[in-house]
Amino acid sequence: MNYEHVFAQAIQSLKDENRYRVFTELGRHAGNFPKATRHLSSGDTQEVTIWCSNDYLGMGQHPDVLTAIKDATDRYGAGAGGTRNISGNTHVICELERELADLHGKESALVFTSGFVSNDATLSTLGKLLPDCVILSDELNHASMIDGVRHSGCEKRIFRHNDARDLEEKLKSIDPSRPKIIAFESVYSMDGDISPIKEFCDLADKYGAMTYLDEVHAVGLYGPRGGGVAEREGLMDRITIMEGTLGKAFGVVGGFITSSRNIVDSIRSYASGFIFTTTLSPIMSAGALASVRHLKKSQLERDQHQERAATLKGLLMDAGLPVLPSVTHIVPVMVYDANLCKQASDMLLEEYGIYLQPINYPTVPRGEERLRITPTPFHDDTMMSELVAALKDVWGRLDLRQAA
Amino acid sequence: MNYEHVFAQAIQSLKDENRYRVFTELGRHAGNFPKATRHLSSGDTQEVTIWCSNDYLGMGQHPDVLTAIKDATDRYGAGAGGTRNISGNTHVICELERELADLHGKESALVFTSGFVSNDATLSTLGKLLPDCVILSDELNHASMIDGVRHSGCEKRIFRHNDARDLEEKLKSIDPSRPKIIAFESVYSMDGDISPIKEFCDLADKYGAMTYLDEVHAVGLYGPRGGGVAEREGLMDRITIMEGTLGKAFGVVGGFITSSRNIVDSIRSYASGFIFTTTLSPIMSAGALASVRHLKKSQLERDQHQERAATLKGLLMDAGLPVLPSVTHIVPVMVYDANLCKQASDMLLEEYGIYLQPINYPTVPRGEERLRITPTPFHDDTMMSELVAALKDVWGRLDLRQAA
Ligand SMILES: Cc1ncc(COP(=O)(O)O)c(C=O)c1O
Ligand SMILES: Cc1ncc(COP(=O)(O)O)c(C=O)c1O
Repeated sequence: MNYEHVFAQAIQSLKDENRYRVFTELGRHAGNFPKATRHLSSGDTQEVTIWCSNDYLGMGQHPDVLTAIKDATDRYGAGAGGTRNISGNTHVICELERELADLHGKESALVFTSGFVSNDATLSTLGKLLPDCVILSDELNHASMIDGVRHSGCEKRIFRHNDARDLEEKLKSIDPSRPKIIAFESVYSMDGDISPIKEFCDLADKYGAMTYLDEVHAVGLYGPRGGGVAEREGLMDRITIMEGTLGKAFGVVGGFITSSRNIVDSIRSYASGFIFTTTLSPIMSAGALASVRHLKKSQLERDQHQERAATLKGLLMDAGLPVLPSVTHIVPVMVYDANLCKQASDMLLEEYGIYLQPINYPTVPRGEERLRITPTPFHDDTMMSELVAALKDVWGRLDLRQAA
Repeated sequence: MNYEHVFAQAIQSLKDENRYRVFTELGRHAGNFPKATRHLSSGDTQEVTIWCSNDYLGMGQHPDVLTAIKDATDRYGAGAGGTRNISGNTHVICELERELADLHGKESALVFTSGFVSNDATLSTLGKLLPDCVILSDELNHASMIDGVRHSGCEKRIFRHNDARDLEEKLKSIDPSRPKIIAFESVYSMDGDISPIKEFCDLADKYGAMTYLDEVHAVGLYGPRGGGVAEREGLMDRITIMEGTLGKAFGVVGGFITSSRNIVDSIRSYASGFIFTTTLSPIMSAGALASVRHLKKSQLERDQHQERAATLKGLLMDAGLPVLPSVTHIVPVMVYDANLCKQASDMLLEEYGIYLQPINYPTVPRGEERLRITPTPFHDDTMMSELVAALKDVWGRLDLRQAA
């Protein structure tokens, strides 16, 4: 058996399909976000502006966060030194969990090493604890939810994206006595659209289902305390389990769920991906805690963020560029072709110092390739004019599709 | 459907079986490891000595590591701000991967958010890329490998722990044309025994299998540069994929694999758990990098660690306590009963300020409950005498089994 050959082929097939990914090596500049140094394989460097970060508010460089991190380093040291059960249950992660439970008005919270792990571990464990459960999953749910549903071993029904009518059809067809979970996101990160949370909750009530809501692209960003879209819409108490990340708007790393005491305790006690792994570092917990606390009190970053996104969308539309009219902070500009998307991205980086990773299959469906722009409060008017001018240039040079 | 009731029952059944886990809330003292502050639910605190940390060498408080962490905080900020593909490919994680590839003498390395994720993501992806693959897995493999094997969807054959003869029986019975992976660990962390790596590699050659070796409890600790047991035994080039953690001997957090360029590139390109998650923070990468670099050059910590473990085993034997004669740094003292194990641990903590988490099912089989002691270079002779005296007391008071 020639194993190397199999793997060489697996790589070659990605290259043949134009979807082999090359990572851009970056060093961000704390205090000067969104500026960063790009490291080339030649050893050379280039100064660039990042336009595709999910550090949506620049909290990754907030003084409160960095101070908390350095204090925790001096106080606790680097790692937790163990799993939650075996010597790794740090005081600061417990504080963070109390803060997150409060953020969502829930009895309990649980922190995981990432948002990915929180979805995978929680959904798979729920499915195992609820005999004969059916999981109803939005067709555009994130890979981590798809993995969680698959690993649960439950029957799965996929409903059309954000489609309450289709969801109801599916719910209706399932034996009322079976446990059911409706799993969906609030903000879908590639189109920037928002799900009909209230309608889904009404259906959950009508058909006796639990609700599982991924607010990864919304926590910190929506709601008066940054609880997410469900907070903004006054629906948090109708969601059985809310899930979020500490790695995007909160600017650090890690993931979490919030729910009732019994549900959180069950995941804590049964989820392999939670139990058998070294705890998130106390340093990261301390940084996340400072970030969550700050964004609970401060509306400033959220207001600036929405203003910046609206301004950029306006500028792109005025320039005739095919921007999706998203209702959120996410600004997708469509290219509709994997090869051209990569070319546009390469040009922007090499010639304009603008870093916008191409978004190709499997992150989006084939034919829906795009540049996904995420303006933050730190992207000023000058940077925006430079970006729009560069995009217009590149659109002309590559003869890309204009706005319809 | 009364969901709350199902979860309340799930918790109750753990309590009925005496295996409901209560986490001990701790604040470690950087610079004064293994001392820590225990936080009680009353709000009171207690000073304790940690005896069950997997920060085996105390690298979590090493000055080089803490300096690297604080420098990276000032330089890069808190989080990576994205997945590896989308703006999160930090310069420092790339440097770390180059250092880890060198550590194992391999072409490439890949860093994950944890050792758990590295096992789960890699094994599941290997299985998907190798059509009709069979995974041969040691019966005592870690939960993360079990998950990876299960998620691969491959046929699985469990062989008896560390048993080359049983492994060969299994290999023989499989169609020679099918791809095969032998998945095992070097140091098994609950008994502290070591697998017959050379024999397994010989069998892999004979039957055309790949080898996958988890060195989570050995990297940093064994081999002249801390490459692990396979380095110590001159066998690294015979292992197809080596896996390790940055969260135990290296004292930080994160996981990794090292292998050929094509294999690492395949996992990088296909593993959902690698692709769709925020990158390990540059701060954590910087701390891990400093730790790996230090332990490549410095043998001192490894020598002290082995001396401390040998000394403690001698003291426990002299005291007639039922210590397992492990061949590694892990010092298990057997209790053989879940309830008594918990009681002994509670007494040690409450009355002696000694923190030793009880190790019960499912971490070990029922009836093999134990206290698992992990002496580090920072556990001095005085601490050891205190520990042995406390254990003798508790053994007497609870009438626990002595050494045979
Ligand atoms: C919708 C969604 N859920 C979960 C995740 C995973 O979160 P994390 O990056 O913290 O692993 C992501 C992105 O990474 C996401 O887009
Ligand atoms: C053998 C083994 N492999 C993998 C892991 C997971 O590593 P990490 O803690 O970095 O997730 C552990 C323990 O946590 C382990 O004991």
